[in-house]
Amino acid sequence: MENFTYYNPTRIIFGKGTEESVGAEVKKHGTKVLVHHYGEEFVKKSGLLDRVFKSLKDEGLEIFELTGVQPNPRLSLVKEGIKFVKEKKIDFILALGGGSVIDSSKAIAIGVPYIGDVWDFFSGKAEVKETLPVGVILTLPAAGSESSGSSVITNEDGWYKRSIDGVDAIRPKFAIMNPELTFSLPAYQTASGGCDIMSHVMERYFSVTRYVDLTDKLCEGIMKTVIKNLPIVLEEPENYNARAEIMWAGSIAHNDMAGTGRMPAWECHKIEHEIGGIYDVAHGAGVAAVMPSWMRYVYKERIEMFIKYAVRVWDVEYNFDEPERAALEGIKKTERFFKGTGMPVTLKELDKSIAEDRFEEIAAKCVEGGPVGWFRPVNKQDIINILKMAGTG
Amino acid sequence: MENFTYYNPTRIIFGKGTEESVGAEVKKHGTKVLVHHYGEEFVKKSGLLDRVFKSLKDEGLEIFELTGVQPNPRLSLVKEGIKFVKEKKIDFILALGGGSVIDSSKAIAIGVPYIGDVWDFFSGKAEVKETLPVGVILTLPAAGSESSGSSVITNEDGWYKRSIDGVDAIRPKFAIMNPELTFSLPAYQTASGGCDIMSHVMERYFSVTRYVDLTDKLCEGIMKTVIKNLPIVLEEPENYNARAEIMWAGSIAHNDMAGTGRMPAWECHKIEHEIGGIYDVAHGAGVAAVMPSWMRYVYKERIEMFIKYAVRVWDVEYNFDEPERAALEGIKKTERFFKGTGMPVTLKELDKSIAEDRFEEIAAKCVEGGPVGWFRPVNKQDIINILKMAGTG
Repeated sequence: MENFTYYNPTRIIFGKGTEESVGAEVKKHGTKVLVHHYGEEFVKKSGLLDRVFKSLKDEGLEIFELTGVQPNPRLSLVKEGIKFVKEKKIDFILALGGGSVIDSSKAIAIGVPYIGDVWDFFSGKAEVKETLPVGVILTLPAAGSESSGSSVITNEDGWYKRSIDGVDAIRPKFAIMNPELTFSLPAYQTASGGCDIMSHVMERYFSVTRYVDLTDKLCEGIMKTVIKNLPIVLEEPENYNARAEIMWAGSIAHNDMAGTGRMPAWECHKIEHEIGGIYDVAHGAGVAAVMPSWMRYVYKERIEMFIKYAVRVWDVEYNFDEPERAALEGIKKTERFFKGTGMPVTLKELDKSIAEDRFEEIAAKCVEGGPVGWFRPVNKQDIINILKMAGTG
Repeated sequence: MENFTYYNPTRIIFGKGTEESVGAEVKKHGTKVLVHHYGEEFVKKSGLLDRVFKSLKDEGLEIFELTGVQPNPRLSLVKEGIKFVKEKKIDFILALGGGSVIDSSKAIAIGVPYIGDVWDFFSGKAEVKETLPVGVILTLPAAGSESSGSSVITNEDGWYKRSIDGVDAIRPKFAIMNPELTFSLPAYQTASGGCDIMSHVMERYFSVTRYVDLTDKLCEGIMKTVIKNLPIVLEEPENYNARAEIMWAGSIAHNDMAGTGRMPAWECHKIEHEIGGIYDVAHGAGVAAVMPSWMRYVYKERIEMFIKYAVRVWDVEYNFDEPERAALEGIKKTERFFKGTGMPVTLKELDKSIAEDRFEEIAAKCVEGGPVGWFRPVNKQDIINILKMAGTG
């Protein structure tokens, strides 16, 4: 086991009706609140926005609004937000939405007290020292950003999708999580979110660190929970308990608990970030399209990890004569699971326009700072090879 | 799944050599620090106390010491500590030890800013509003107190062992956890600690709440980790990785994550508290002596939970003809496990002086506030019945 520090002070407020406590939660930290959201019809029609505004007003808070967040949230809106927050002297940012809104909120929050360009944090030129407080009402379980120390932003200038990770200061003050708010999520978003959750655990699970029994088990437990409940919510969108499992799994998958004491992988996320930056695909779908190919490309590197994954997560019987068969069976089962939820498992299925002649560019952008990932660091040629495998499956 | 809130802001600093960061951690919160510990030879001989003092001095902190903590920590020492801390204007309490020292430290910390008798918090007369900050260097993995919102104190006046639970304000600011510091723990304390850890999970696992897949899995993962690694550390006391698994399992077992969204049980802890208060036995051993009998007494109440436990935690094959057999096999395996680690599984084995003529008194004290526990609340007669079953096995 590796040495580690773990610190996650996000207050989780989970369950039915919890969004009505938002005013009281915000009031602990601020007085002028920016409600940052997609601006989609759902939050208005469903009455959610009204309920949130009422709760904030009941506590005497002054409300501002900034909408227009897109999937793969953009730097331009972040900059607009920073300007607006400074002008209005806003002191709290409430993210109402999923990972994109939360990441955009975090980026605004760190940009406000910073004198330079907020992109400096994402390009590795600056470290976060100060931030406005951020709170979350989660409507899309996927990114785990509601209690993570991460934010991923896309810079339209060059279409770079870059992240800051492991920064405790940007963990939200609170995350309000009502599974009922996810009942109306479309199947594609639900499935993409579920695959994103799976991938957050898998990127931690496939590790070069040995002797990490407890976190192996935590990871396996989270994955098995998603494997059981994601098909249920796709068939029964209003199944509260199954939605609740997915929602809580999404947080635990990325709150860093399941990664304590072990080196992670993150190769697939790094590759997907380049694809997502250029082609603007749903993140979970992008990961689903790349991951099985990545697994096939690297599994021999530490085959016992892939056998363990097959046996414990997918209930594949250990093959004493040909253990490798078990490893490959686990990969196949992963692929079938993604596919069964409606996700793409090849780049072609992800987006027809992702052509082989861009693989070179994607790979080059990905390794600008050297080989990426920690399970089996991949260089430019590795990435091209993986993308070729993912091309058509 | 039940609604829940989860908030655990303890900073975990885990691994080799981490005690050397204690000065820097304390300095974030205070300047005059009380080092509260058992005063046993080990901390001096091993050089641990010197290293801790050096780290504190290097940060310019003023050091005070209060030793003499006993297992089942006493109210009298807590009161002495409160007086001392007030006199010396100490502003931080560093617990160096296991659950007893940490619980004693927490009790001192809440007693200092309180005008009345600190026992008020434990007798349910007062709620914690304010507290001095507490930090921990853990030397005995068991109680999980290093990041929990609990403290258990024994009042010598009547030998009442009482707890405060779920109070976020008393969660320590940090917990430094170096598995190497547990290498020299005697086998009995190691095993007792391991059983305490198991019991913290079991008290959450046996729940009346249905549809709690994720926390089922977290609980099962923690238990399986202890079941695998406790025998290893008993045979190889200096096995770093196995010690590390037990140490981290001890925290996660009781940091409340594994109990999110589900009603807990806690019947056995309530019963053990009375036994521990009167007979001063090691807590983990006391729980081991009571738990199998409690399980046999209540398993029919929600038998599917006990079958699940047998199948998933103990790898008992599901018995389609007689499912009850699987449930009973799980209980037997638990008992054999406790016994195999050198723990008592009857009251006789726990302490020969625990005689049947005291069962009435133990039960009466336990239910002074009404039936206890949430899995299958037990009244006075239930407790007497369980104690009789636990009497000789």
